[in-house]
Amino acid sequence: MVILGIDPGIAIVGYGIIEYKNNKFKVIDYGAVTTNANTPTDQRLALVYKGIDILIKNYNIDEVAIEELFFNKNVKTAITVAQARGVIMLACTHNNKPIYEYTPLQVKQGVVGYGRAQKMQVQQMVTSLLKLKEIPKPDDTADALAIAVCHAHANRLEKTLKNFK
Amino acid sequence: MVILGIDPGIAIVGYGIIEYKNNKFKVIDYGAVTTNANTPTDQRLALVYKGIDILIKNYNIDEVAIEELFFNKNVKTAITVAQARGVIMLACTHNNKPIYEYTPLQVKQGVVGYGRAQKMQVQQMVTSLLKLKEIPKPDDTADALAIAVCHAHANRLEKTLKNFK
Repeated sequence: MVILGIDPGIAIVGYGIIEYKNNKFKVIDYGAVTTNANTPTDQRLALVYKGIDILIKNYNIDEVAIEELFFNKNVKTAITVAQARGVIMLACTHNNKPIYEYTPLQVKQGVVGYGRAQKMQVQQMVTSLLKLKEIPKPDDTADALAIAVCHAHANRLEKTLKNFK
Repeated sequence: MVILGIDPGIAIVGYGIIEYKNNKFKVIDYGAVTTNANTPTDQRLALVYKGIDILIKNYNIDEVAIEELFFNKNVKTAITVAQARGVIMLACTHNNKPIYEYTPLQVKQGVVGYGRAQKMQVQQMVTSLLKLKEIPKPDDTADALAIAVCHAHANRLEKTLKNFK
């Protein structure tokens, strides 16, 4: 199964594409779709949509895992990022790809095993699991890979539970 | 000039299409794109996008006016509505329509003449200006028409100021 993990944003959309087969990970691609703050919002949204659309079309993506937004302070930032998250979800749906959503807590649990893990621990675990030479930059890209890994583990758990029934 | 006014939302997207020519208004269409709370979010976003896309393609829209989101309480609602607002903007941009954004305060000022007007006053003024028999329902539709009227007035003001220079 090929998973596209996405850390949503308007300036930086982190993405990580991994294959998960026979309990083994293979990294396919990772990086970020970026937009400039001087570009009008509607054009930035179009760039984000196009970026995700190209990724889905270029790779044989089976499922998409995306982080849920969690904000308690800056509502303005929340709105800006949520607008981008809307077009990201739309790009996936327009390509008929199922979307799975995970909270930051679930990502930590799914990668490291417990929800109070530090950011650095999550990044190190992802780097180790995916056999990367160093922690991917920017953080958004590392986060996107973590979300993809989280989804792979969640899937495995689900299958195990099904076999157990 | 044909203006599409939009009151963004995920359950109800109000819209109002008016023509403004020689300082006169003509109502072309108004209503709401609605989605069901039981439908998955990605499908709801796709429905909202499609709805706006159809409106733009069916009518000879020149410009789009959309309300800016303003939330100070429920961040979760803000995020949900902002995701929808993102796909609405995308539908406009994909159709090469310029988007103008107005705050609730600007809409009140643009329609009634002062920013502390009551909702009912705005609705009555819109109904009167557009020569409608009654206040359009739901509120989201009335709001969308108000946003379109606000944009028409803002445009007129801009032209007047240009001539004055």
